[in-house]
Amino acid sequence: MHTLVIYDITDDQIRMKIAEACKSAGLVRIQKSAFLGTINSQVRKGLIMKLRKILGDQEGNIQIFLICEADIRLREMIGKPTEEEEDMLIL
Amino acid sequence: MHTLVIYDITDDQIRMKIAEACKSAGLVRIQKSAFLGTINSQVRKGLIMKLRKILGDQEGNIQIFLICEADIRLREMIGKPTEEEEDMLIL
Repeated sequence: MHTLVIYDITDDQIRMKIAEACKSAGLVRIQKSAFLGTINSQVRKGLIMKLRKILGDQEGNIQIFLICEADIRLREMIGKPTEEEEDMLIL
Repeated sequence: MHTLVIYDITDDQIRMKIAEACKSAGLVRIQKSAFLGTINSQVRKGLIMKLRKILGDQEGNIQIFLICEADIRLREMIGKPTEEEEDMLIL
């Protein structure tokens, strides 16, 4: 399963912390506020707990999607991928 | 199948046009730069063509994910949903 995290956060500090949490969980940045990757359910649960803690009762919205292999293959991209994603696509 | 569109666009005009295209295709805004909904494949293909045309060779990245019913149920949300999504959840 692939994990997609998308977030909509105005506070720069919180946004940065969310990006760091996604990155250290092993996800790859595919947009400024979107991370994607294959991580196991334990890592994913840990990440979700961490994200809940980071946001606390501050304003914002974070969504975590699970996408199966069959569906991820149907993904369409318009425009240039991020450097991080480009590296992942090459690997 | 559910269609999720996420975008990362710096140009205000282009970003607005993308949001309008998603909305008129029948998708619901779930974040500032993310739309979700169940639309048929013909509408989705039309939307993707429109989005390609809107972005043209301008800078930016748009990604369209297809997510099956089983996977969409596993979605987790942290923070408050948008008003549009709240309306959708009630319906």
